[in-house]
Amino acid sequence: MEILDASAPDFADRFDRVVNARRESANDVGRDVAEIIAKVGAQGDRALAELSIRFDGHTLSSDEDWRIPASRCEQAYEELDGDLRDALNLAAERIRSYHEAQKPNPRDYTDDAGVRLGHRWNAVDAAGIYVPGGRAAYPSSLLMNAIPARVAGVERLVAVTPTPKGEINPLVLAAAHIAEIDEIWRVGGAQAIAALAYGTDRIAPVDVITGPGNAWVAEAKRQVFGTVGIDMIAGPSEILVIADDQNDPAWIAADLLSQAEHDPSSQSILITDSADFAAQVEDQVDVQAAMLATGKTARAAWDAHGAIITVPTLDDAIPLANRLAAEHVELAVDDPEALFAKLRHAGSVFFGRMVPEAVGDYVAGPNHVLPTGRRARFASGLSVLDFMKRTSFIDADADALAAIGPAAIALAEAEGLPAHAQSIRLRLK
Amino acid sequence: MEILDASAPDFADRFDRVVNARRESANDVGRDVAEIIAKVGAQGDRALAELSIRFDGHTLSSDEDWRIPASRCEQAYEELDGDLRDALNLAAERIRSYHEAQKPNPRDYTDDAGVRLGHRWNAVDAAGIYVPGGRAAYPSSLLMNAIPARVAGVERLVAVTPTPKGEINPLVLAAAHIAEIDEIWRVGGAQAIAALAYGTDRIAPVDVITGPGNAWVAEAKRQVFGTVGIDMIAGPSEILVIADDQNDPAWIAADLLSQAEHDPSSQSILITDSADFAAQVEDQVDVQAAMLATGKTARAAWDAHGAIITVPTLDDAIPLANRLAAEHVELAVDDPEALFAKLRHAGSVFFGRMVPEAVGDYVAGPNHVLPTGRRARFASGLSVLDFMKRTSFIDADADALAAIGPAAIALAEAEGLPAHAQSIRLRLK
Repeated sequence: MEILDASAPDFADRFDRVVNARRESANDVGRDVAEIIAKVGAQGDRALAELSIRFDGHTLSSDEDWRIPASRCEQAYEELDGDLRDALNLAAERIRSYHEAQKPNPRDYTDDAGVRLGHRWNAVDAAGIYVPGGRAAYPSSLLMNAIPARVAGVERLVAVTPTPKGEINPLVLAAAHIAEIDEIWRVGGAQAIAALAYGTDRIAPVDVITGPGNAWVAEAKRQVFGTVGIDMIAGPSEILVIADDQNDPAWIAADLLSQAEHDPSSQSILITDSADFAAQVEDQVDVQAAMLATGKTARAAWDAHGAIITVPTLDDAIPLANRLAAEHVELAVDDPEALFAKLRHAGSVFFGRMVPEAVGDYVAGPNHVLPTGRRARFASGLSVLDFMKRTSFIDADADALAAIGPAAIALAEAEGLPAHAQSIRLRLK
Repeated sequence: MEILDASAPDFADRFDRVVNARRESANDVGRDVAEIIAKVGAQGDRALAELSIRFDGHTLSSDEDWRIPASRCEQAYEELDGDLRDALNLAAERIRSYHEAQKPNPRDYTDDAGVRLGHRWNAVDAAGIYVPGGRAAYPSSLLMNAIPARVAGVERLVAVTPTPKGEINPLVLAAAHIAEIDEIWRVGGAQAIAALAYGTDRIAPVDVITGPGNAWVAEAKRQVFGTVGIDMIAGPSEILVIADDQNDPAWIAADLLSQAEHDPSSQSILITDSADFAAQVEDQVDVQAAMLATGKTARAAWDAHGAIITVPTLDDAIPLANRLAAEHVELAVDDPEALFAKLRHAGSVFFGRMVPEAVGDYVAGPNHVLPTGRRARFASGLSVLDFMKRTSFIDADADALAAIGPAAIALAEAEGLPAHAQSIRLRLK
């Protein structure tokens, strides 16, 4: 963990190092992934079966080996502890409600020249969701990916998930039941992404692929981008807490640890205007980390990537926050909106002292799939729009064409495209 | 050119071949592009200078070699033929007006549980636009890429363009003046994309890169995706005309040729319910192609990729159109809206007999940067949204947290994330 003082002469250099630190896997998996994609493209299901044995120790032979039936998801849902079932249902309902209001509007208007213009939105026909196996198999992630697709109106919703040595996470199945996933295939890794993008005999291709995954999955998504749509490339999670000394240091420490416990590559940063408060939070992190079942991971992340930055005033935190463009930003201050007004780059923001980031991971409603690794400079969280596309339209009668057509002819001729000009000229006669 | 009859027994197979025909470059430039990007990353401006001599025959030495000053753009604008200047201004004004209305709205509401939720949109800080040199240097493309960025509120707008043997297209400079481009750098190819994504001593990095380019540029954009945002990967242009026999065959032939003249890889397809009309259009394509200055290109594209498909009724055209998911679709029929209602996948649609696609290329207002190669299944035309991103926010008081917090605790514990649970539990006490 690094402690930085914004007034120190070496601060700019040290802060640059925090901003530019590489936390994402530097493994060059590009060539291996390209080979896997080519293999699935050439051999289809046979390649999936071979790679599933090799990487997951799972044999794809009978239909049940390949696909988890809806009845099994329903069973997992029924067998769930009642409180947990209620919690999943509350989360699903709140996510659905928040995303319903994201549905975009059509446009249709006629302008001064008499040209009718507009657009319409349609859902994609089919979407595929990657669901990691093992430690990172989170039912909440399945809901956060599937529900926006359902709200968008996607007709065919497919999940792929590795089942290492056959193991399946019943919580994920219950979430799949709630989200009404149409197909769940027991394949993972780059090979699952290839199957979704290009299709095999068993698995029909989809139009959009979203969902978290390891470096191989992320690289596979990048390589099939353009054949299908994908969500943003995702890296390790991160939180930036901007807090004054009126907070309970234990609360803020818990917030920092809640990101750190995800992965040894996670990053937690506190910016505060009080060196005393900073020291109290640091102590609390040590105390709480020692008691956590996930303490080893949290400790590793905090030690390697954590930072506490003291600034003269809270306003001085904002330029730093804009440089960091963090996935999650807590504004644990009296007047969070004053800071939010100046914050340009962040995935999701949590106002005040009573909203720990973890609320947003599960039940608040906004999507928890958010841009990481400074990508909030240009990217947004997952939304209904990721599963829809816009078709523009143009309508005109002879008068409207007469009003704007001559300018188009002039430009087409200047660009050396005479057939473009001719297609308009013929209609103006 | 292929002639297909939807009633023929071999139609499904033949149509599949049309849908799946590869028109995009199969050149595997991935490794070469990766080397160029690594070289620019390591050597910066020195790499740009070396590669510009090698690929463009242009020496980057003095400031003027590197950058085109605003005064030179203004001069190009002033020296433009008056009609052309008016045409460019009309195009810019109409594009601006159409895109202004795309600006998305913020949200801010409090739900039944007392949780305040919403989002805000911000523009990215800086955007880079690739402008091809040579034949494909279109001022209209510069306007279509730059104006949505300006409307979004992007503060720093950068263009990069190769200037082969020093040559600069004055029309492009005039368009850059109209669009108020802040910086124009005389670099092109994958090396220009690398410079925009990672920055060099001279060229500060940007957050989003858009604009058309050759296979190297497209691959470079794919490789830097995630470090920056990019627009959709673009392939050769295409048009699908759905027309009945009440159209003038010469008009429809001109429309088909207007795509064909772009590039030998362009595709023009006619679907009609009249074999007689199909034959007349075919004749007219031959007649007009012979007279075009771009006839050689248009002829090559039409011969290699053109198709005329006859269907029993115009309704039968719709499932075919949805499979093709074409960039441009003309509905040259009496009731275009009846067909449009069933058309799910298209980049932009042109209603009726009086709107040739070329109007949309220049002056109609909607963006002419549209998804190609069946990508309209999942992608949209360029818009203001490509230069903006959304930040969600969550606000809650103690009562609201008490309403939703316990469910989040249950889910966090079920997912094995105790610090998540703890960060909420501490606040509920």
